[in-house]
Amino acid sequence: MVVRDAEASRRRILRAATAEFAAHGIAGARMDRVAAQAESSKERIYAYFGNKDALFDAVFTASVGRTLEAVAFDAEDLPAYAGRMFDYFADHPDAQRLTTWYRLERPTGPGLQAVIDANRVRVEALGPARTGGFPPVALLTLVQAIASGWGTMNPEFAGAAATIDRAERRRTVVEAVRRLVAG
Amino acid sequence: MVVRDAEASRRRILRAATAEFAAHGIAGARMDRVAAQAESSKERIYAYFGNKDALFDAVFTASVGRTLEAVAFDAEDLPAYAGRMFDYFADHPDAQRLTTWYRLERPTGPGLQAVIDANRVRVEALGPARTGGFPPVALLTLVQAIASGWGTMNPEFAGAAATIDRAERRRTVVEAVRRLVAG
Repeated sequence: MVVRDAEASRRRILRAATAEFAAHGIAGARMDRVAAQAESSKERIYAYFGNKDALFDAVFTASVGRTLEAVAFDAEDLPAYAGRMFDYFADHPDAQRLTTWYRLERPTGPGLQAVIDANRVRVEALGPARTGGFPPVALLTLVQAIASGWGTMNPEFAGAAATIDRAERRRTVVEAVRRLVAG
Repeated sequence: MVVRDAEASRRRILRAATAEFAAHGIAGARMDRVAAQAESSKERIYAYFGNKDALFDAVFTASVGRTLEAVAFDAEDLPAYAGRMFDYFADHPDAQRLTTWYRLERPTGPGLQAVIDANRVRVEALGPARTGGFPPVALLTLVQAIASGWGTMNPEFAGAAATIDRAERRRTVVEAVRRLVAG
């Protein structure tokens, strides 16, 4: 029972920390808010996870794992893949925010092996024949930028963006990637 | 002379704060580092700018002004516009980082009127005839995502991205926008 309680406590901490880091980033996150939200204590969080950076890494690693599992890659149908990525980030804005904080605040870490592996597998699967003439690495960059683009517009654009509903945003993403690949 | 000295002091503070906010964001910025770098003091910074958020807003407003001035919009040649935006962010990564921090950390502010105006002018200039069938707002979103995409890849992608040099990155951006508009 003790083991099971510890596991439940870790899960509550990770859930609370995911929301806290997504909202405020690493520098802005407050461990006392995470502790209160998780009905835990800062001492326990540090005992479980080490320090704030390590807690962020645990949160981000779990988030990336969920994303990679949910968004199936398909080298033969990149428009559909882009549509799935769009859906995932629209449904899970926290996942996109965590990725952005990670890029800004943890640029020199060792990198997540799961992401490095996924990138390599995708580049190899693409090969030059399926990319509309773009180098595979460049096409992956373009597809990711397009699929996540609606989530990267600054607040000044919100009024204009509100005129395009979610279904139409998705169509623009899929169609944009279709045109890229068609050449 | 006193007025001129104060002006020089404000400029030094803004320059130091630009580097500090670009590196660390709002929550992560340290006013004592800005003061030391600007050969000023925290008291003087607060006297000039109010508080940390207001200092960030001054830094970001100035950065956006420089970007809008440097990256000329051309509704009739969006690929060239995208190429200019790519160049600007490649030459000024701090400008792109400031934009991203702003989105993450100041999402509910009133918005910069200069940006709101620029967006409105661009959407009107585009009109539906020049957008390859995309709604103008959607095309602007796509173009911005593509032009800034190379600066938004996470560090795990650095190894793969290093195989594409800057000239080729620029070509992929310009060609991607050309295909979008061509329909």
